[in-house]
Amino acid sequence: MAASETIQKTIYVGAFAHCVSLTDLEVCEKGAIGVDEGGVIRFVERNGGNGIGAVKEKGGKEWDAAKIVEVKDGFFFPGFVDTHTHAPQHPNTGLFGKTTLLDWLDTYTFPLESSFSDLQKAKRIYSNFVSRTLSNGTTTCAYYATKHVPATNLLADICLARGQRALVGRVCMNMLSPEYYRDESVESAVKDSRECIEYARSIDPKGDIVNPIITPRFAPSCTADCLSALGQLAKETQAHIQTHISENKSEIALVAELFPDSKSYTDVYNTASLLTPKTILAHAVHLSQEERKTIKEKQAKIAHCPASNTALTSGCCPVRELLNEGLTIGLGTDVSGGFSPSILEQVRQAIWVSRFVAMQSPSVSSPNDAAKLSTTEALYLATRGGAAVVGLEDKIGGFEVGKEFDAQMVRLGSVPKEGEVTGGFEEAGGPVDVFNWESLEERVEKWVYSGDDRNCVGVWVRGRLVHRTGRFEA
Amino acid sequence: MAASETIQKTIYVGAFAHCVSLTDLEVCEKGAIGVDEGGVIRFVERNGGNGIGAVKEKGGKEWDAAKIVEVKDGFFFPGFVDTHTHAPQHPNTGLFGKTTLLDWLDTYTFPLESSFSDLQKAKRIYSNFVSRTLSNGTTTCAYYATKHVPATNLLADICLARGQRALVGRVCMNMLSPEYYRDESVESAVKDSRECIEYARSIDPKGDIVNPIITPRFAPSCTADCLSALGQLAKETQAHIQTHISENKSEIALVAELFPDSKSYTDVYNTASLLTPKTILAHAVHLSQEERKTIKEKQAKIAHCPASNTALTSGCCPVRELLNEGLTIGLGTDVSGGFSPSILEQVRQAIWVSRFVAMQSPSVSSPNDAAKLSTTEALYLATRGGAAVVGLEDKIGGFEVGKEFDAQMVRLGSVPKEGEVTGGFEEAGGPVDVFNWESLEERVEKWVYSGDDRNCVGVWVRGRLVHRTGRFEA
Repeated sequence: MAASETIQKTIYVGAFAHCVSLTDLEVCEKGAIGVDEGGVIRFVERNGGNGIGAVKEKGGKEWDAAKIVEVKDGFFFPGFVDTHTHAPQHPNTGLFGKTTLLDWLDTYTFPLESSFSDLQKAKRIYSNFVSRTLSNGTTTCAYYATKHVPATNLLADICLARGQRALVGRVCMNMLSPEYYRDESVESAVKDSRECIEYARSIDPKGDIVNPIITPRFAPSCTADCLSALGQLAKETQAHIQTHISENKSEIALVAELFPDSKSYTDVYNTASLLTPKTILAHAVHLSQEERKTIKEKQAKIAHCPASNTALTSGCCPVRELLNEGLTIGLGTDVSGGFSPSILEQVRQAIWVSRFVAMQSPSVSSPNDAAKLSTTEALYLATRGGAAVVGLEDKIGGFEVGKEFDAQMVRLGSVPKEGEVTGGFEEAGGPVDVFNWESLEERVEKWVYSGDDRNCVGVWVRGRLVHRTGRFEA
Repeated sequence: MAASETIQKTIYVGAFAHCVSLTDLEVCEKGAIGVDEGGVIRFVERNGGNGIGAVKEKGGKEWDAAKIVEVKDGFFFPGFVDTHTHAPQHPNTGLFGKTTLLDWLDTYTFPLESSFSDLQKAKRIYSNFVSRTLSNGTTTCAYYATKHVPATNLLADICLARGQRALVGRVCMNMLSPEYYRDESVESAVKDSRECIEYARSIDPKGDIVNPIITPRFAPSCTADCLSALGQLAKETQAHIQTHISENKSEIALVAELFPDSKSYTDVYNTASLLTPKTILAHAVHLSQEERKTIKEKQAKIAHCPASNTALTSGCCPVRELLNEGLTIGLGTDVSGGFSPSILEQVRQAIWVSRFVAMQSPSVSSPNDAAKLSTTEALYLATRGGAAVVGLEDKIGGFEVGKEFDAQMVRLGSVPKEGEVTGGFEEAGGPVDVFNWESLEERVEKWVYSGDDRNCVGVWVRGRLVHRTGRFEA
């Protein structure tokens, strides 16, 4: 439905909420956001109580014929940014048992990913996964694909057609991967990666929606010369880079063994020129102080993947500390290490992980408040933080004049007067119970802790409607 | 719909799964469970491949006219047992900010609970909450109500009318509670509690569905003589008991201060004769070895509330250790300290908490596998474990001849051939993506990690259908 639709000047009317800084959530009960034909926000009105007419008048004559989209029992919220996920692993969501990273890869991941030589299968899985992420309000997503060029290009096609902003990465791995699923040589790894870069740039020359991203799986899967060749490719093409770092302790030990001359895991990537302002490092759970310093100096970014780190027992990333040190952080679903395609779920999981960090604090008998992420901070990571991780901090993440309108319409349920609900809660509005005495801040909190895709009834990217459910009423 | 419906002999046909022990999940692809007019399971057939006719024949002539209820893209699973929750706090679900237990009570809980003098309000909230718990597959629930007798009795009425097994407890608190919300005296606390016990027994004399439970809020809210009087009342009435124990460290310090002569938090309850085989102790996060020993000797039971303990930063209950020591444990949602009315969510949260315990283990560089709960173990806690906590281990928790049929019909989605889903995922079957190459074990795992109330399409208590959604097809 998305890409073919014409955009018309539109005013989004009703409540909205967004993070204006890491610690401040702005809520506005009666807002009006004017978006032009290019999907750019032209005005943000905070006192819409005087009615549509007044808003239109204030916007100027050109807004007379604007379309009105009103949110009733909910609010507009910026679209979510997923800074790290693996689209081909979608069918394995929820399957991990008691494995940890390295045996999980062999048991679950490699057999499935290798099957993406089958384009028909790739199409089914990728199409479904993009539907899933869109339906959860993800307007921008950094995707790992597989090593296969045609399937990776297909994922780029799908994202472009559906209108979801995406970084699409062909996975490189020429070492310690199964015989049946690895790059044959450094040359072929670079050649195939280049092909995917060129393809993505051919279908979306301005890179408004789809961009390529160079994707060495992680240090243990790549020889030093392969990493360096990919660093060189990044320099030459000015492409984004994504990889994993410091996810679990066995992996870190393995990297130390494989790269005995490197000072650290971070140093492996730095040596290969893979740490750039356009680099996304997923996990970053167990970084040393020195590694964090290097990452900050190189302006590389971090994708925090709390659900995955918990499910695979990788560790608790001390996010609040990393934020205090000035690192740039977003959230990643990391499907299928992560068990959910929803960034809203990651918002919750990031909060839980921060609470576990707070409870681990050895020096205090009560939990260390300074380690806790607040609801607002977690929402910031999900929107503005993520936008900065993918290099779109000037374009998305909040509702300001000049930004592009990437947003979701959130609708909440309403508890009936008599209370009882028969049948499913779908008809009653999903999982969030609003009694109608809650403030807008409280309704946002309720959404964060109880909400799911049922509450995400409409999703826009650059002003274009890319997803809607039956509860969306334009 | 529930209580008025007549039960007819019914055969539940299709896949089923249940825990046969703490570590064994039985899955059966082609099952048939025969349930009589009293809601009792009369046969469990594991080779239903020969068709309904053969099953009926095997059951005997009396099953000829039995109703057939078939599950298609899913399985039957035992109903969940919620061993600890606070029905009046339902409207505060998701509201807790960065508070911890003691300030959370003052900020959020007491003001709301005290308003249950308003019966109209109580009706709306209780009716809605019972709808919520039923819709999440909770067939048995241990409810805290408030201190108000009429509202507590109303909750018992609602549970009986809707057909949900319930322990309904009037909350006692004569100390350290706000002026506006406390028992005036020990005598009035006992009198009011007795009134609620008698009421519950008058509306359900056999106690098949509703039973009373004596409910001292927790040690800091009750004087020693109040606790002893309630212990005495329990002895006299043979009623169940529920309270909180060892939830967070400040609370434990407070108890030590308030009860200087007691050896421990556990000892406070033991001294008051409140530790019995019918006692449910919620939380039990920071118990000493000696306290655990006392609880085991007294055969008291434990309600593990992982979501709540994480949200309020109370601590990580070492559940696997408690299980190894032979304690009886179920799961509790602990709304609204807990942010979800779903026991399936608690299954996940119990697994996450156990993983955090595994990662905290100081002596190992890799996570301590022995601390991790498996999916099966967590499901056991949610069903048989919970059944034992509420004293129904002989009646519910699994599918065996002689047990009563407390069950949920779980239906999963199916990824379409082309993959793409437009509109919401409600129509496509909810949050679980099944590609149809998964084994039944894998489908159960997917449900555990991605499922929600959308997958719970029908719920039975004692063979009576007490909840159904639009996707239920009898």
